Amino acid sequence: MLAERLEHRASFGGWQEVYRHPSRVLGCDMTLGVYLPPQAQAGARLPVLYWLSGLTCSEQNFITKAGAQRYAAEHGIILVAPDTSPRGPAVADADGYDLGQGAGFYVNATTEPWARHYRMYDYIVDELPALVEANFPASDVRAISGHSMGGHGALTIALRNPGRYRSVSAFSPIVAPSQVPWGQKAFAAYLGDDRAAWARHDATALVAGASERLPLLVDQGDADEFLASQLRPELLQAACGAAGHPLQLRLQPGYDHSYYFISSFIGEHIAHHARAMHG
Amino acid sequence: MLAERLEHRASFGGWQEVYRHPSRVLGCDMTLGVYLPPQAQAGARLPVLYWLSGLTCSEQNFITKAGAQRYAAEHGIILVAPDTSPRGPAVADADGYDLGQGAGFYVNATTEPWARHYRMYDYIVDELPALVEANFPASDVRAISGHSMGGHGALTIALRNPGRYRSVSAFSPIVAPSQVPWGQKAFAAYLGDDRAAWARHDATALVAGASERLPLLVDQGDADEFLASQLRPELLQAACGAAGHPLQLRLQPGYDHSYYFISSFIGEHIAHHARAMHG
Repeated sequence: MLAERLEHRASFGGWQEVYRHPSRVLGCDMTLGVYLPPQAQAGARLPVLYWLSGLTCSEQNFITKAGAQRYAAEHGIILVAPDTSPRGPAVADADGYDLGQGAGFYVNATTEPWARHYRMYDYIVDELPALVEANFPASDVRAISGHSMGGHGALTIALRNPGRYRSVSAFSPIVAPSQVPWGQKAFAAYLGDDRAAWARHDATALVAGASERLPLLVDQGDADEFLASQLRPELLQAACGAAGHPLQLRLQPGYDHSYYFISSFIGEHIAHHARAMHG
Repeated sequence: MLAERLEHRASFGGWQEVYRHPSRVLGCDMTLGVYLPPQAQAGARLPVLYWLSGLTCSEQNFITKAGAQRYAAEHGIILVAPDTSPRGPAVADADGYDLGQGAGFYVNATTEPWARHYRMYDYIVDELPALVEANFPASDVRAISGHSMGGHGALTIALRNPGRYRSVSAFSPIVAPSQVPWGQKAFAAYLGDDRAAWARHDATALVAGASERLPLLVDQGDADEFLASQLRPELLQAACGAAGHPLQLRLQPGYDHSYYFISSFIGEHIAHHARAMHG
């Protein structure tokens, strides 16, 4: 099922690997970063943190820049970092960094020319964990996190799948895609004008109906260049307040939208997920 | 003197910055990564670790991939990461990644077309620390480290400048450039056939005459794809043994030549330099 191992690099006593695999759901080959901590050598099944990246990213951004391997090694956690969209010459694309390849938005597209391949929601929720749990020393104890578009993905997927994740967190997430330009452009393309479908992929809309009170941990830099236009964490804060949904929103002074922000706090996020998954 | 600040990003409570500055020594503009830890806000002058990167690198590789900021913040150390050669359309270049721009080898070239701009030795030894100490809360307490070609630079510059650095370390260094293809190609181009000049830029040749017994800390991955052909740490080990020069050479099992190796051990190197510089 894992057709080809592209990278195998020692890192903090474990192995940072990259695989290419054929995705049935997406109808194309996908690349995938997997960090196996030293504890994976012992044969036990380890919990898994799924990391969803942001616009323009592949699996490489997180695995080369976040510095997460150190903390995964400390806590005995596998890190899985998928790509952000279907890929390849047969896959529809668009001009601009915020639609098409590199911008899957973690939805199942229902409109043309996207519906054939753009099924990132099903890929992340179903196909990816099945593949990981079948091919690595990975348990079904899962957590999910991500950045920006991937923070949106982590929050919406966790909110829609009670019991599937022990914990969820996000860096600089797009919390209300239905209300900001990035989300409106992508949702209009992938989902058409079905506003109910939009709401099913909007964290701010989903908290009202969440059947599980999974606490949301959100870090947001206050010098983030996209804060006021695209991210708007105050909308999530208001929705959680109205719904009584637990939210820890931390505004981090001085931090921007880059991996310098993620690397500064990924250790705290991994510790948070480790407590939930090992506890 | 620091013409332009290109980046200013919060990182581990401090600031990762990138500057462009005109270099008098190199006769071109240079970019420069500077990490200012949280302690830099307090006004005291902090010790500085100079990091020399390897072939093809700019300042970006180290500042985005090594994860060094965490440790610099813990120990109150400024990190300075220069580019690896003069740059720009007026600067001579060559085909191939191992000569010309991105491959300065930390020497002062004496042959054409290189002699005009390729003076990385003088830049690193003199101009760079003067610039750093004049423009940042940086003391003249210095350490030096680097990777591959930059490990060669760190070792040779420390060995030739007794008293200038409190400590030196290297990852995967080219320890005997006069005896391996990378070094032979670069030295023949930059220094001609003056073998005495080669020896002044060859760590394995320099230890015999070193007037200061500065201990050398060297980490080398045993799965490094360049180990047997270009790096050959056993030559440095033999030279240090013959000269009675202190060397801690650590062969790290499974690690390759990438930043995954550097990130795994940069914390130990920074702790080593912090002990020497704060002690």
